[in-house]
Parts: sequence; C-alpha cells; structure tokens
Amino acid sequence: MRITILGGAGFLGRKLAARLAKDGALGGRAITGLTLFDLNAPASLPAPFPVTCLGGDVADPAAVAAAIPAGTEVVFHLAAVVSAAAEADFDLGMKVNLHGTLAVLAACRALGTRPRVIFTSSVASFGGGQDALVPDDGRQIPTNSYGAQKAIGELLLHDASRRGFLDAVNLRLPTVMVRPGRPNKAASSFVSAILREPLLGLETNCPVPDDFAVWICSPRATIEWFLHAAAMDTAPLGLDRGINPPGRSLTVAKILSALEQVAGKAAREKVGFVFDKEVFDIVKGWPGAFAATRAHRLGFKEQEPMEEIIQGFIEDDLAATKAERGL
Amino acid sequence: MRITILGGAGFLGRKLAARLAKDGALGGRAITGLTLFDLNAPASLPAPFPVTCLGGDVADPAAVAAAIPAGTEVVFHLAAVVSAAAEADFDLGMKVNLHGTLAVLAACRALGTRPRVIFTSSVASFGGGQDALVPDDGRQIPTNSYGAQKAIGELLLHDASRRGFLDAVNLRLPTVMVRPGRPNKAASSFVSAILREPLLGLETNCPVPDDFAVWICSPRATIEWFLHAAAMDTAPLGLDRGINPPGRSLTVAKILSALEQVAGKAAREKVGFVFDKEVFDIVKGWPGAFAATRAHRLGFKEQEPMEEIIQGFIEDDLAATKAERGL
Repeated sequence: MRITILGGAGFLGRKLAARLAKDGALGGRAITGLTLFDLNAPASLPAPFPVTCLGGDVADPAAVAAAIPAGTEVVFHLAAVVSAAAEADFDLGMKVNLHGTLAVLAACRALGTRPRVIFTSSVASFGGGQDALVPDDGRQIPTNSYGAQKAIGELLLHDASRRGFLDAVNLRLPTVMVRPGRPNKAASSFVSAILREPLLGLETNCPVPDDFAVWICSPRATIEWFLHAAAMDTAPLGLDRGINPPGRSLTVAKILSALEQVAGKAAREKVGFVFDKEVFDIVKGWPGAFAATRAHRLGFKEQEPMEEIIQGFIEDDLAATKAERGL
Repeated sequence: MRITILGGAGFLGRKLAARLAKDGALGGRAITGLTLFDLNAPASLPAPFPVTCLGGDVADPAAVAAAIPAGTEVVFHLAAVVSAAAEADFDLGMKVNLHGTLAVLAACRALGTRPRVIFTSSVASFGGGQDALVPDDGRQIPTNSYGAQKAIGELLLHDASRRGFLDAVNLRLPTVMVRPGRPNKAASSFVSAILREPLLGLETNCPVPDDFAVWICSPRATIEWFLHAAAMDTAPLGLDRGINPPGRSLTVAKILSALEQVAGKAAREKVGFVFDKEVFDIVKGWPGAFAATRAHRLGFKEQEPMEEIIQGFIEDDLAATKAERGL
C-alpha cells in the first residue's frame, strides 16, 4: 500500500515515518511507497520501500494533489498551524488549517478510490475549561481559532466520508508530551517544557498554576493510535468520525511529581512558576478531562503512565534534542 | 442603521424586507438604508428609506463586500443552496454555503465595526432522526452536506464573533412552512406542499409516512425571530452563538388534521402518499423534536399553533401564490 504523510517534517510526522520504515507494513500489508510532504521537503529516511519527499503549501491544491498520487490508500493529515500561532495570525490559520484541509479533501476525492484519511483534530476544539469532563458526544464549542478550524476540518472530512469521497478518522489529540526539540508556538508548549528543559539541565517557567489539569498523551501512544486508525474497520464508526482517544488527565503538580520520581529533586527544582496571561487565556478554555469510552471500545490502546512517558522521552528523544540544541 | 439582506430575493428575504420597510425601524432605531443582494438583483420595494438592489455571487468576496457597505450594522445572511440541491451538487453547495459564508466573514471583518450577523443555520445540521429530542447543547452530526456546510458556517461565525470581527447569532431554523410559490429543491419541500397544494385546489403526494415527525416553524415566527436576533443583547450568549429557536414538533398526520380543520375534508383528501426514497433518505436523519429552552430564556417568541400557521398562509401568501402559478 502507498501512504502519504502531510506534515511529514513535523515532530509526529517524523516519528510516524520512522515507525512505518521500521515495520515495512501497515495493518498486515506491505508498504510499497511513502510520500512525505511539508512546507519544506522533509529529509528522507532509510526504508524497505521508496520514499518521496516533497515541499509545498498544504493550501495549494496542486501541491497536495502531487503529494497524494494515484494508488494512495492512507493519508495522514498532520499539517497544521498550531494554536497560539493560529490565534496570533487568523489568516495564516485559516489558510493552512481550513483551506489546507479543503485541498486534502479535493485531492483524496479526485483519486476516486476512497483513501483512509487520519486527521489530527485536537482537544482545543472543545471548550468547558478545567471543570469539564467531556463525554464522547460532547459538543465542540471552541475557545480559540485553532480549535474552530480543527472542528471545521472534522465536519468537512465527516461529510466527505459519508459521501464516499474518502474514509476519515478524526482523532482529537490530547496535548502530546514530551515534545523534543525547542519550545514552539503551541499554547500548550509548556506542558512539554516543564519536563524536557529540566531533563536537559535547563531552567524553565510554567505559565499556569500547579493545580492546572491537562489532558495529555505520549508520542508513543499517539503513533499507536495513528497506526490503529489507519488499519481499523471504520464501519462501527457509522456517521460519527470523531474519536476522543484515551489520554490521561494530569495536573501540573502530578506531572512534576513524576519528574522528581524519574529524574530526582534537582530536576524538579528547575521549574519555576511565572504566570503568562496570553498562554493561560488560550489553555484555560480547554477541557481538563474526557470520558473516552468509545475509543476503548474501538480498540485504541491505553495511554501509559506518566513515569513511562518521561522514560520514553529519555529513551527516544533526549539525545537527539541535546544534539539539536548543542547541549 | 444600515441593513443588508443576503438572499434578499428568497422567500424569507422578501418577507423580511417587506417587514423592515413597513416598520421603518429595527430595535427602536430608524433604518437609514437597506441593501438587498441575491444571485439576480432582487426587485426593490417601497420603503421609508433608500433601498439598494444588487445581483452577484455570494461566493465572490468583491460582490459581497459591495453588498455590505461601510456603516452596515446588521447583516441577515440567508443566502444558501438548499438541502437536496447541495446533496445533488456537492461543489455548488460548498461554493455557496461554505465559500459564501467565508466571503460574508471577510466583508464584515473589513468593516472594522463588528456588525451583527444573523445566520440561518438549520435543523438539518443535526442528526439523530425521528427518535431524537435534541437538547440545547446537542452535538451537530449532520446527515447531509447542506447540514454539514451550515454547521461549518456556524463555527466560522462563532470564532469570528469571539475574535470581535462581527457579532453573530446562528439560528438553526426548523423547516419553515407554509412556503408560498412552487415546490423547490429542499428535501423538506413536501412539508409545505401538503398544505399549499390542497389550499390551491391541487393534488399532491406526501413522500414520507404520516407518522413522520417534523420540527417546523411559520414564516411569521421566523421573521419575529430574525428581528429579535438582530436587536437582542448578545452578551448572554457568551461563546455559544448557536440557537435552536422554539419551533414545534408535528407529525404529518397532525399537520393534515389541522388542514382539515381549517380548509375541510376535501382539502385533506387532495394529499396522497407515495413513498420517495431519495427524499426520505435525507429527511429521515433530521431530528423530529428539540428541547429549545435556551431560546425561550433569550426571549425568542413562541411558535403559533398549526391552525394559525395555515391561516397565516391564507392571509399572507395564498393570493400571490395563485397569481404566480396562474391558478
């Protein structure tokens, strides 16, 4: 099978590509080709199948069509402008997050072969804030433009699935942590920073109080969910293509306790608290917890505990992050 | 205040324009100008203020910007491709219902004066079917492209309201009946036809069984809702700009009983039953009833009983419909 990753140079795109290259197969079928697409052409990687790397604008229908050639059976649509960036620049967010998804819809429809599309929607498409426990049929009332654009993308792919243009699974990802590399423009960037920076021996400031709860997941769990979403039987989804995968709800205090347990007291003491209203005003609207029972029934794997998430970062990403940042 | 009606040549647009011309004011303030916009320039009407009539494509940003001049305080965005037409022609529905709303957003934002926008969303944006009693926070899982496009339009205007580009009220209209004129391409066209055609002395076929429940409202109630939405304080809405107005849930059998009561047994006997799968497959997904408690609290007026709806059609529209159809 041929696979395309849009956003192939991103954090999750690179991890997914590496996993596909390692496995050589998806859902028990051999992979015959992989296309990686991003604003700048992603670096290739060694794989038991041909890898094509393309650069282009996801809002450009011709560029996206080129990235989804005939025979493509699975498209991972991970390309996005993240939350704080989409809030700071409305037009950029609309271009990438809305018109980009329209271009993906058009390219998949043009194939005429109903490819599976795994779309990364987000916890940020929900409101409710700290007190919310979002049920599986919870309504999306976004508190930020990124979340609104993701909810719109879901509706587009939902209707396209109903019409038979494609076969979408819309995964509302929790805040993925621990992100490698540097802080980014996601409002949730601090959720990774309070672990990553201390593990790098650096100090960092948490912009929200320590009783603030976040709905999180690990990169390892996310990749498992991607693979499951790509290979699962979508018939049980019916019309409803939106899935709240089984993340975990943790307070900042609990995350830091896990850090202390894994890396010691000195690591934990690298984290200070400096309130940041701009960040808080975005993340305060995101629900702190979900009742993700449907995802369990649909076979999505349980999230590992916090200590294992930290251990996973140390094993998978710490060395590369150190090298990248010259530490 | 300056007002614009997009879709000003349509059934509801014409009624709304006539009402504004009659009142000369909205929310206690004098109307200083009205722009009517539709695919073909709407006919003008006598009014105590200047009326500008423009023809153009609602998906053309320049045409929409011309229809929403500086100083516009209220925009009624009624322009749409209706349900069965949007289902039959996906691209046309996307153009008008999605890109049209994007053009409205851009034109209102460009004003810089945060105009009130009254957007006609639809019961068709919900799923659940006959058994549903949709709560005010019910999730929109559309069963048709029209409904998906309306739900997307709501999200666009919701986020634009949050950002302060405009000030939207998204009214999820029930099936409006009795529509004057001829049957149209709305899948719900029959809901009006089973009353209008007999009142014209014509036979008609109902495409669904007589125990089928529909969530309906009258043109008179709809116009009242429009005026209330245009003048209301939107602060109590908070982030949630979607309103399920207080329609009524009635079965086809009850609608026909009311017809018999108002117009006699002979009128009722003009209605036969011929099942139409294409129509049924669209309308069967629409919820039969809503628990519209929020709209009550927000001051939206109660729907009048079925007999009065029929009487309203006879008073307001029967003569014109007869003339239009040469009867």
